[in-house]
Amino acid sequence: MTEIISSNKNDKIKYLKKLYSSSKRKKKGKFVLEGFRLIKQAYQSDAKFDYLFVTDSFAKSREYQEIISDSKLKDKEFLITENLLNELSDTINPQGIIAVVSEINYKIDEIVNNSEKILVLDRIQDPGNLGTIIRTAAASGFDAIISLKGTVDIYNLKVLRATAGAIFNIDFLNKLDYNMFNKYLKNDLANYQLVCSDPISENYYHKVNYDNKVILVIGNEGNGIRNDLLDKSDLKIKIPLKNGIESINAAMAAGILMYQINTK
Amino acid sequence: MTEIISSNKNDKIKYLKKLYSSSKRKKKGKFVLEGFRLIKQAYQSDAKFDYLFVTDSFAKSREYQEIISDSKLKDKEFLITENLLNELSDTINPQGIIAVVSEINYKIDEIVNNSEKILVLDRIQDPGNLGTIIRTAAASGFDAIISLKGTVDIYNLKVLRATAGAIFNIDFLNKLDYNMFNKYLKNDLANYQLVCSDPISENYYHKVNYDNKVILVIGNEGNGIRNDLLDKSDLKIKIPLKNGIESINAAMAAGILMYQINTK
Repeated sequence: MTEIISSNKNDKIKYLKKLYSSSKRKKKGKFVLEGFRLIKQAYQSDAKFDYLFVTDSFAKSREYQEIISDSKLKDKEFLITENLLNELSDTINPQGIIAVVSEINYKIDEIVNNSEKILVLDRIQDPGNLGTIIRTAAASGFDAIISLKGTVDIYNLKVLRATAGAIFNIDFLNKLDYNMFNKYLKNDLANYQLVCSDPISENYYHKVNYDNKVILVIGNEGNGIRNDLLDKSDLKIKIPLKNGIESINAAMAAGILMYQINTK
Repeated sequence: MTEIISSNKNDKIKYLKKLYSSSKRKKKGKFVLEGFRLIKQAYQSDAKFDYLFVTDSFAKSREYQEIISDSKLKDKEFLITENLLNELSDTINPQGIIAVVSEINYKIDEIVNNSEKILVLDRIQDPGNLGTIIRTAAASGFDAIISLKGTVDIYNLKVLRATAGAIFNIDFLNKLDYNMFNKYLKNDLANYQLVCSDPISENYYHKVNYDNKVILVIGNEGNGIRNDLLDKSDLKIKIPLKNGIESINAAMAAGILMYQINTK
């Protein structure tokens, strides 16, 4: 670790830059993490690291030394100039470190075996919303997340930041094709209660009964859940809205419903 | 309405620009709204308008004509160039309209007379969080919000946007001095149950009883509620956190607690 990378023409840096695009990430099966907090959580959850790009000053910091010094990551480390790191980074303050990590591939049968409560996301658009939903899903005791194609990429950096690291505390399927999800619904997921959040439902969420095995679906911020999926639901629920308010934030709705289901 | 204002040296524009600063807003007792959605809600809730700055093209739009054309706001309207509006605006897409509106001054005795459930905010820092909290407070059926000094300004444009207009659907005190709040606690608010959200409490929020009259306190994102206020509480509650998650978003916590209190 003697050379300090300063050019964005460097091959490793060119590779890293590609991973800032969602389609390139998917193709390579890799994603980017920025900042020590997220990277520490990835490390502690046994994520597979390809590269660690670290500034000289951060490499000498105590927090970095404590995590990485006696680790198996020594041969993944590359020093990088502060200027180049700031140029690459999506964050205003990337805290001196960027990592490239392999995607985590959960399988549907693992998820079914380990999950009583599964959250399904149908085209959530806002990265902050998605990250907050993931964080709250894990906190509430939901076991897994299935994110349908059309939802913002879970590996988007804004999403990862908003999870506050919780992405490493819950199983998930990212960008699942809707036809594939329908096959799962008929087979692997057939004995779950399919509960859809739907503002025009007649059932208040706190006055209904939930099974032990629940799939909760949250839909797009503007348009809700697609009709085909609503039609398949076992139960539609809504959150009461007072004082003339017409809607609440989608992440908030998800959190209120998940906590209700898990504390009832 | 013939002249089109194009210069930021115009007296009305200089006045408007000052109101983008929190301290100047407070001094003048005025605030700024951007975008038709918020301005329409202000109009429908009888807010007092000082100025409407509108681009020529937006002034001709059907939505604008429908709201403003037969209104008492005709003499508040001033045409402004697209360039100047974009230069002034805090929003990327200000939708052709900016308004100056008088602050709404609620009194503590009005609030007490009209409120069973009051939310108190102790130094919430993030504008998005504050806006989401206000929107969810109104939706959940909370009657009023008391925002203690040290909390981000309710009239901050990012806050107003995140409320999605709900700021016009709930009573509030903005930037209340903590000593004054303590006086209210001893007198006007003495017969409310003071409930504090506190992660180190032993009481799970869904296993306790709430009075009819509740003050719920939510604290700073990093540091929680100040000790002096925690010491005064009748009940401390916490939200269970699973899967190794250490905390959830402050707005999310507020929403989960308010809905529990109002649906129990």
